[in-house]
Amino acid sequence: MTAAQTATDTFFRSRWVERPAHVSELEPTGLPTGFRAAGVAAGLKAEGLDVGVLFSDVSGTVSAARFTSNALVGAPVTVSREAERGRLRAAVANSGGSNTGDGERGLETARATQRLAAKLLAVEPEQVGVASTGLIGTELPRLQMLDGVRAAIAGLGGDADSFSRAILTSDRRPKRACLRVQLPGGPVTVAAQAKGAGMISPRFATMLCFLQTDAAMSVDTLDLLTGVTVKRSFDRVSVDGQLSTSDTVFAFASGASGVRVEPETEDELRLGEAMDGLLRQLALEIVADGEGAARVGRVVVRGAGELVEPVARAVANSNLVKTALHGGDANFGRIVQAAGTAFPPGTPMLVDLEIEGRLVVSGGRALAADSALLDQLVQGREVEYALTLPGHGGETEVFFSDLSPEYVRLNSEYTT
Amino acid sequence: MTAAQTATDTFFRSRWVERPAHVSELEPTGLPTGFRAAGVAAGLKAEGLDVGVLFSDVSGTVSAARFTSNALVGAPVTVSREAERGRLRAAVANSGGSNTGDGERGLETARATQRLAAKLLAVEPEQVGVASTGLIGTELPRLQMLDGVRAAIAGLGGDADSFSRAILTSDRRPKRACLRVQLPGGPVTVAAQAKGAGMISPRFATMLCFLQTDAAMSVDTLDLLTGVTVKRSFDRVSVDGQLSTSDTVFAFASGASGVRVEPETEDELRLGEAMDGLLRQLALEIVADGEGAARVGRVVVRGAGELVEPVARAVANSNLVKTALHGGDANFGRIVQAAGTAFPPGTPMLVDLEIEGRLVVSGGRALAADSALLDQLVQGREVEYALTLPGHGGETEVFFSDLSPEYVRLNSEYTT
Repeated sequence: MTAAQTATDTFFRSRWVERPAHVSELEPTGLPTGFRAAGVAAGLKAEGLDVGVLFSDVSGTVSAARFTSNALVGAPVTVSREAERGRLRAAVANSGGSNTGDGERGLETARATQRLAAKLLAVEPEQVGVASTGLIGTELPRLQMLDGVRAAIAGLGGDADSFSRAILTSDRRPKRACLRVQLPGGPVTVAAQAKGAGMISPRFATMLCFLQTDAAMSVDTLDLLTGVTVKRSFDRVSVDGQLSTSDTVFAFASGASGVRVEPETEDELRLGEAMDGLLRQLALEIVADGEGAARVGRVVVRGAGELVEPVARAVANSNLVKTALHGGDANFGRIVQAAGTAFPPGTPMLVDLEIEGRLVVSGGRALAADSALLDQLVQGREVEYALTLPGHGGETEVFFSDLSPEYVRLNSEYTT
Repeated sequence: MTAAQTATDTFFRSRWVERPAHVSELEPTGLPTGFRAAGVAAGLKAEGLDVGVLFSDVSGTVSAARFTSNALVGAPVTVSREAERGRLRAAVANSGGSNTGDGERGLETARATQRLAAKLLAVEPEQVGVASTGLIGTELPRLQMLDGVRAAIAGLGGDADSFSRAILTSDRRPKRACLRVQLPGGPVTVAAQAKGAGMISPRFATMLCFLQTDAAMSVDTLDLLTGVTVKRSFDRVSVDGQLSTSDTVFAFASGASGVRVEPETEDELRLGEAMDGLLRQLALEIVADGEGAARVGRVVVRGAGELVEPVARAVANSNLVKTALHGGDANFGRIVQAAGTAFPPGTPMLVDLEIEGRLVVSGGRALAADSALLDQLVQGREVEYALTLPGHGGETEVFFSDLSPEYVRLNSEYTT
C-alpha cells in the first residue's frame, strides 16, 4: 500500500515545498546506514502498534533535540531534557498515553523505560531519549511499556515502517520519508518519521519527529541544522492554536556514510536544504491530516519586524478564518479583522491583502472585487493569503488547517 | 411574548450574577425618565428592524463610551471617538453593515448620519454617537441609512423595544433590561440594550451596548462607573477569541430623577453594583446566545498577578476546552494543557484545578477521580472551572461559550 501510494503521490506534495535539485526520494520507510528500528503492539492502545524503538549502532553518533515550550510537560520530556547532551543513541516512543500529569509515578515509568532500553542496547541510560503521546492525566502502564521495549528491541531491523506506525495516534496515515542527498563531499541519506494529528483528533495533537542521517558532523552542526529547520517547519504550523505537553523532535547523525559535513560549507548548506524540505513537508502533512475535505492555509506576513509574528499567528489561529477556509469563502474581512487584533490599539491598519495572488484590500480599504471569481480562487486544497503591513524588516509565514464540523464533533464526543 | 418570557424567566438568570438587594426589575423594554428611543426597518437587512435612535431630552445629559481595541475599526468608531467628550445626547445604531474598511466613503456616511440626527434632534453633531454592526468590507447604503434615521427620529417613544431589536443581527432574542435601583438619595432607573451573537454567527460578532440612567452625576463619575463595569462584564467574555472592529458601549445619565450620585458615596457604590449586575448578565447573554444546547463556561484563576489574565484567556479561547464543554466532557487534561501554554516555558506547573467545586488536579498532578461523577458535574448549562496558580495577588475570570458543530457549519457556509 505504501509503495503504491508513493509511486502516484510523491513526498513533496505541497506547492509550498520544493524538492531541492540535489535531493531524490528513496523508499519512504528506508533508514540511513547505521540505524535500525521497530514497532510493536504492547497493548497501550486498543489496537495497533504502540511502542517503537529507534537505535543507531554507531558509537560516535551525535544527537540534537527540541521540545515543547508548554510549561506543562509530560514525564518523557523532563527525562529526555535531562539526558540529551548531544550523544543520544536511541529513542523509545509510544502512543496510547502521554504520561503527563502523573507525578513521580510517571517520571519513574519514563526512567524505567530509559534504563531498560539502555541495558538491552548496551548504552548508558543518558543515551536514550523517550517520547510519549496520547491522553493526558492517566497512568502509563509500566509493565506493558517495558514489555513493549523488550519486544521492539528484539525486532530491530533496517526499515522504519513499523516504527513509523507505532508512534501514530489518530493520524490517517504514517508520515515519513527517506531522501538521498548529493553533497559535494558525497551522497548521504536523511530520513524522518513524524506523527501529529491535524483536525481529526487534537486531543492527541502531540507532534513527534525522529530524524536520522548517516552524514558525519559535530554535535553543534547537527544542533544548528535541527534548530533552524524546526523553526521553519514544526514551529510554523497551527492546527488549533494549542501547544502540546509532549512535542519532541530528536535528530541523530551516525556518520556511517563517511561524508563529513563541516560548518559553513556547501555540504552544510545542501544538507540543511534537504532537512528543510523534509521537515516542512512533514509539518504540512500534520496540518493537512484531517478528514478528506480539509484545506491548508498559508499566511505570509511582511512588514515591521515586531508585528509580523503576532499578526500571522492571529490570522492562523482565528476560528473565523479557519471556518471561512473550510467553507471555501474568500472572506477577506475576517483576515483583516483577525490581523487587527494583533496591532497595537490605535495603530492605523494600512494593510494590503492578497488572496491567491489577487489584491483584495489596499491600504486598509476593500477593493471592489468579483466575489464569484474570488471564491473560485479558494476552492483548492491549499490557499495562500499574503498580508503586507506598514514598516519593513519582517517576514514570516504560518501554515494552518481549516476548522470543520468534524473537528468539533470528534473533540466533543470523546469522553475521558 | 417578551412580558411572558420575563415573568417565567427573570433577567438575572445566571448563577454567576446576583441581583443586588436594592435592585428590582421593571418591564425590560422600559427607559429611564428623559429618554426616548425607536427602531425602524430601513432595508439594510433583508428583513427586520435595522436602524435605531436613542435620545435624551435633557440638555445636561452626560455620557461615557468604550470602544473596541482592535486596530481595524469601523468608521462609526472613528467618528464616535472624535465626538465623545462626555456630552453625547443621542446614539444612532444600525445592523446590516458594520461600515468597516470602506475608506473615506464610509467615514462620510458615518458623519452624514451624525449630522442629520443632530439637525433633526436640535443638538450639535458632536453630541451624536454612531454605531454599526454587520458585514465588514461592504458599503453601507447612505441614503437608506439616512431615511432610517429620519423615520426613527419621527417615531421616538418612551420604550426601548423597537430600538433593542434594530441593533440585532443574528441574536436569537433581544438583550435588554430596565432596573429600579434604590439609592440612599432616592430611587433611580437604569436600563440597557445590548446585542452580540454568541455561537450562531460570529461573523457579525460585534457587541454593542447602550446604557441609560436618570441618575444625576458628573461626567467623571459616569465614566468611572462605565469603565469599571465594562471591565467586569464585556471585557470578560470570549465567544471565539475574536475582537470585533466595532464593539461599542455608550452610557448616558440624564439626571432627570433629581437623585444626585456623588463620588465615593454609598449612592455611587449602589449604582455601581446595579450597573455591574446589569452589564454582567447582558455579557453572559451574549456568551449564551448560541443554539439551544450551548453551554457557558466560567474560568476563575487565582495566583500570581501577571499570570492570571493570560492563563484565563488561554483556557477560555482554547478550542479543545470549548469542544469538551460542548460535549459535556470533564476533560481536566485540556484545561491544564491550555493553561500551560500561557506559563513562561520551564515554569513548574504546580496548579490546582477544581471543576464545579471538586478538586481534580492538585499541585499539577491528576487525582484519581470518578470520571462518571465528574462528567455528571458538567452536564448543566453553566460549568465552572477554578484554577489556582503559584503566587498571590491576582484573581480574574472569563466567561466563554462552547464550540459546536453548528458554529462551524454556520461560519463555513456563509458566503461573502
